Amino acid sequence: MQLLLIHSDFIEYEARKSTPVAEKISEPKDRMEDALVAFIAVEKQDEANPKYVVEKGAEAIAGVAGQVKANRIMLYPYAHLSSSLSSPKVAVEVLTALEEAMKSKGYEVKRAPFGWYKAFTIKCKGHPLSELSRTIRPEGAESISICAGEKPEAVSEALKAEEKLKS
Amino acid sequence: MQLLLIHSDFIEYEARKSTPVAEKISEPKDRMEDALVAFIAVEKQDEANPKYVVEKGAEAIAGVAGQVKANRIMLYPYAHLSSSLSSPKVAVEVLTALEEAMKSKGYEVKRAPFGWYKAFTIKCKGHPLSELSRTIRPEGAESISICAGEKPEAVSEALKAEEKLKS
Ligand SMILES: [Mg+2]
Repeated sequence: MQLLLIHSDFIEYEARKSTPVAEKISEPKDRMEDALVAFIAVEKQDEANPKYVVEKGAEAIAGVAGQVKANRIMLYPYAHLSSSLSSPKVAVEVLTALEEAMKSKGYEVKRAPFGWYKAFTIKCKGHPLSELSRTIRPEGAESISICAGEKPEAVSEALKAEEKLKS
Repeated sequence: MQLLLIHSDFIEYEARKSTPVAEKISEPKDRMEDALVAFIAVEKQDEANPKYVVEKGAEAIAGVAGQVKANRIMLYPYAHLSSSLSSPKVAVEVLTALEEAMKSKGYEVKRAPFGWYKAFTIKCKGHPLSELSRTIRPEGAESISICAGEKPEAVSEALKAEEKLKS
């Protein structure tokens, strides 16, 4: 699973055109203020252990939400974060489970629909923690690695230390 | 080089905080209407042949600009598209050369500064070609591969055929 987490003043989207794997939706558009937006690519490797990926993904999102003090989460499927995608079926299962996992952690959660071409607007806040990425990999039933990536265009050790101080 | 190309109604940004590798800038903010925004990660592998990567990157961006009929290009450094980044020095060289290459192809070009934490707002148009990704890899002085990726959340052959018809 690839995650790109953007702390935003707002995000809004409108589903414009379905693909053959589109989820059924009742409401084509939505908006969230002061949200941590999690752009998500569910990857082929995640199929080996979707449950673990959901659990670790939820922990990663909650970790950043805690750092930036966000109570609202928008889960937004984003295939362009990976060159090795899971099946659409697994993607929807993981995204749905992630939505439930975040709700059970107490967040207000919305999820943009999978399988649609969407227009969207996002306003990124621009502080040092407002854009972060995470890679979550199941390497077997017992072993999970989380590769954290904090990098604006290049992150120095000084900046990493600064992030630690803030967290 | 990883490219994420978003056809936008507008993009605007404001450089908020420099990192130790920040470019010197005269103007901290800018905006472009009806722009093809190229989010770009210059990668470690690109250091083997930056010139080729610039040339092929410019061709890839121009190709999409032609498809979506965009005359304005915003080049926007985006480290989160790769887990293997080039040195900041090579990144700035490649981005600067890419700016010149796109200008010489006749586009109106702006480039967001490297090495700054930036606030930004982007409005993605949402049509089927408004989000595309490209991977450009130098595999040696003589051999270059371009891995094209058109994938909303999952792209069927039908959709690929549709794209070809439009292009
Ligand atoms: Mg606000």
